Amino acid sequence: MSNSTKDKFDQLLQIVRTVSDLRAAASLLEWDQETYMPRGAMDARSRQVSTLYSTSHEIFIRDRTGELLDQLQDIQSDPLGFQESLIRVTKRDYSRARKLSPQLVGKIAETTSKAKSAWAKANSENDFSAFSDHLQQVIDLSIEKAEAIGYLDHLYDALLDEYEPNATSAQVKNIFDKLRTSLVPIVDAIKDDPAPESDFIHYSYDGDIQWDFGMEVLRDIGFDFQRGRQDISAHPFSTSFSINDVRLTTRIHERNLVSGLFSSLHEAGHGMYEQGIVNDLDGTFLAQGTSLGMHESQSRLWENQVGRSYAFWKCYYRDLQQRFKTSLGNIPLETFYKAINRVRPSAVRVDADEVTYNLHIILRYEIELMLIQGEVPINELPELWNDKMNEYIGIEPENETEGILQDIHWALGAIGYFPTYALGNLMSAQIFSCAQEAINDLENQISTGQFHPLRQWLQSNIYQWGRKLSAIEIIERLTSGGISTQPWLQYIQKKYSDIYKSLS
Amino acid sequence: MSNSTKDKFDQLLQIVRTVSDLRAAASLLEWDQETYMPRGAMDARSRQVSTLYSTSHEIFIRDRTGELLDQLQDIQSDPLGFQESLIRVTKRDYSRARKLSPQLVGKIAETTSKAKSAWAKANSENDFSAFSDHLQQVIDLSIEKAEAIGYLDHLYDALLDEYEPNATSAQVKNIFDKLRTSLVPIVDAIKDDPAPESDFIHYSYDGDIQWDFGMEVLRDIGFDFQRGRQDISAHPFSTSFSINDVRLTTRIHERNLVSGLFSSLHEAGHGMYEQGIVNDLDGTFLAQGTSLGMHESQSRLWENQVGRSYAFWKCYYRDLQQRFKTSLGNIPLETFYKAINRVRPSAVRVDADEVTYNLHIILRYEIELMLIQGEVPINELPELWNDKMNEYIGIEPENETEGILQDIHWALGAIGYFPTYALGNLMSAQIFSCAQEAINDLENQISTGQFHPLRQWLQSNIYQWGRKLSAIEIIERLTSGGISTQPWLQYIQKKYSDIYKSLS
Repeated sequence: MSNSTKDKFDQLLQIVRTVSDLRAAASLLEWDQETYMPRGAMDARSRQVSTLYSTSHEIFIRDRTGELLDQLQDIQSDPLGFQESLIRVTKRDYSRARKLSPQLVGKIAETTSKAKSAWAKANSENDFSAFSDHLQQVIDLSIEKAEAIGYLDHLYDALLDEYEPNATSAQVKNIFDKLRTSLVPIVDAIKDDPAPESDFIHYSYDGDIQWDFGMEVLRDIGFDFQRGRQDISAHPFSTSFSINDVRLTTRIHERNLVSGLFSSLHEAGHGMYEQGIVNDLDGTFLAQGTSLGMHESQSRLWENQVGRSYAFWKCYYRDLQQRFKTSLGNIPLETFYKAINRVRPSAVRVDADEVTYNLHIILRYEIELMLIQGEVPINELPELWNDKMNEYIGIEPENETEGILQDIHWALGAIGYFPTYALGNLMSAQIFSCAQEAINDLENQISTGQFHPLRQWLQSNIYQWGRKLSAIEIIERLTSGGISTQPWLQYIQKKYSDIYKSLS
Repeated sequence: MSNSTKDKFDQLLQIVRTVSDLRAAASLLEWDQETYMPRGAMDARSRQVSTLYSTSHEIFIRDRTGELLDQLQDIQSDPLGFQESLIRVTKRDYSRARKLSPQLVGKIAETTSKAKSAWAKANSENDFSAFSDHLQQVIDLSIEKAEAIGYLDHLYDALLDEYEPNATSAQVKNIFDKLRTSLVPIVDAIKDDPAPESDFIHYSYDGDIQWDFGMEVLRDIGFDFQRGRQDISAHPFSTSFSINDVRLTTRIHERNLVSGLFSSLHEAGHGMYEQGIVNDLDGTFLAQGTSLGMHESQSRLWENQVGRSYAFWKCYYRDLQQRFKTSLGNIPLETFYKAINRVRPSAVRVDADEVTYNLHIILRYEIELMLIQGEVPINELPELWNDKMNEYIGIEPENETEGILQDIHWALGAIGYFPTYALGNLMSAQIFSCAQEAINDLENQISTGQFHPLRQWLQSNIYQWGRKLSAIEIIERLTSGGISTQPWLQYIQKKYSDIYKSLS
């Protein structure tokens, strides 16, 4: 690299660091808002977060950034080099950011801010008609946004690309059609099987003891508490302000023995991904998970493939029994294992089990696509929702709050986001089956509490790259193919045929 | 206000809000660093905080800010109006900020960053010679800074003005000379009196019970937990990110019954000041305590005039005894009261009692002045320090760690900061004596736990103004005079003559 090129790269790096630092600060303000902030601080906090994002956006989209990127485009020796990767990823983000005019960004912010309040009210009052106009505005603006960003094949591609770079609507449709076709009969078959006993999950379990057990598990699987922490919040989430400062939150229900633990495992999966990014990338746009789908694959892997496995509970069940002797003393491991894997069709996505979950996502994707294509009038959505729920999961929501109104995502303007949940589930199975092939005796390791080899393998194959590799590139390196439904369907078939006879 | 003037003011307000929001974010990052941040996050956090401050500084000192201020200088109808006050205060801050070149600001940041590390090492190794060169550089840069800012009478004025706007070195010297002359004989007289019994303060007291008691007291005196909170940190401090988000920290020692409580009261005094600023000022430069001295007067008022008073413990001692029956059951109120007001000359400022504390400050001020005037070579400082300690407080530090090296302030470049501690003590007594005159039966109210009238009086006379009035203006409104030593000396004389016979 010549001196003048080096100088230009340093200038670009300076802009990237400033923008990253301002965004990290915004994330900390948001974390604090959900954990420790006093209630009265809400108004000031909203303004501060918005100032941080708008200031970082202004600094990023200056002409100077584009000039530097243009002048630096010849550096193309090693596609995985730090400079090359940073320039590539920054160029992508810059190009998207510049295409959205401040007017459009402002209009989206204003509309979604109102839509969010309207959704909260509509949700609590079970009244979709109070939200429908707002939703229509969000859809109209999403179309305007997609037009501004541009796309090759389909409007929806431009929206999806924000959350799952390079994925296309055609790919997703193809994958989801296959998935739905295989999954609906499985759910249908399970429904007529006798349900495993699970009442004991809902006895009363002391919150502090649950917390301590969860912390022990997080330490064991390798979440680094020197570079992260766990707190309590109303809705579990994970966030990071640096790869050395990763925060998880969980929520503990005294009347549910495992929901807090599985939340913790899920968020720790996200968190270990961020902690595992190679140190040199910190403070730049490269130091993030490479897509929402890949991120979700990591949370789901630890929550489901590991955390809901028989091997995992061979290791931990005795410990849990010791902590809750009265309630669990007479419950055998097999009964416990079946209880935490009980399939129970639910109207509500966040309550869904591992098997039915993807159908909730497919339904949302299909409706989003119809909305973007103008194929369904807003006022017919509740009925469409209920029909699809009935068709896919065999259940009808009792009201709009538990139906069309259950998720906040659309009110936030997040159209194109939902598919990443299901893509994450599929990738988690692809990745885990590669890990099983690569690591001798993985199941036995898990059943004896040895998580280091698995984490190390994920570190080498996924975590370390940050955004240097895209999700698709990672999957291609591992499987020589793309995102596929087969490993996940096989995993479900194999696991659940032990629990439900109709599948075996 | 004409439309064009209104438009200009709105533009100025927009800049002020952005700068305030970025600074508030920096403060939250600093708060988090001292409370919840994982250890491994230190490097990233330092960079992020520095980015926030430098970005806010860059936005503030743009030419546009100065142009708007110039164009708005004719608005002068009501000096206490929002617009007028904001323009006045912003002009003051802008003028100071512009006088410091980015080169000088950078040099100071670099020098103090190194000085801070050197000080920490020198402090832990009891070796002033490892810090002295750094101190010399800090002094040289402080002189350069004072020259850049400008002053009427004395270099030191320009430094003092950063922390205590409009105060001058001549005023401070005059006040401190009087104070020292009266105080040294008092300390000297007390020394030969028998010391009150106080061993029981250092029995073992459960930390959680101490915490609960402190929280109850904070609620009672009126710290608003809907708009603030208290946490634990290694060094107690208070900070705010909005008048509706004020954070206190304290530290609890199981071997000291009262140090945690008095820290809490001290920080809550700072915190209630910020919470009491009138809501309209929030998110601007007006929504802060008007000077460090005035801030300290509010913390000291609640810590000492209220918290260490006999009336206060008439109200609370029974409660405290109930919580610690074994240790306090046989200790009468009078014994407890004398123990928490024991005067014990100490080499270390932060361990000093109410009586000797100001002498620690006067000593530092005198040495700072000599340094700025080049009247003492750096290598003679330890001896000068010890001589003055001996002369004023009658004690000699056993080593440099407990002598010249005890405070971090100089390493941070904070020359001109120390005087505000003593000015705060003096103002606290002036203010409290005005409150006593204004509020019928204040002592009796305190002894029955009625703190509302006192807080309300402080709200009206001090809190509400934010920076609309300067410290001097507030004192003039209350006393028709300036900062004076008499009320504090009278308070000390009256209170301590009940405890030490030699004073009566």
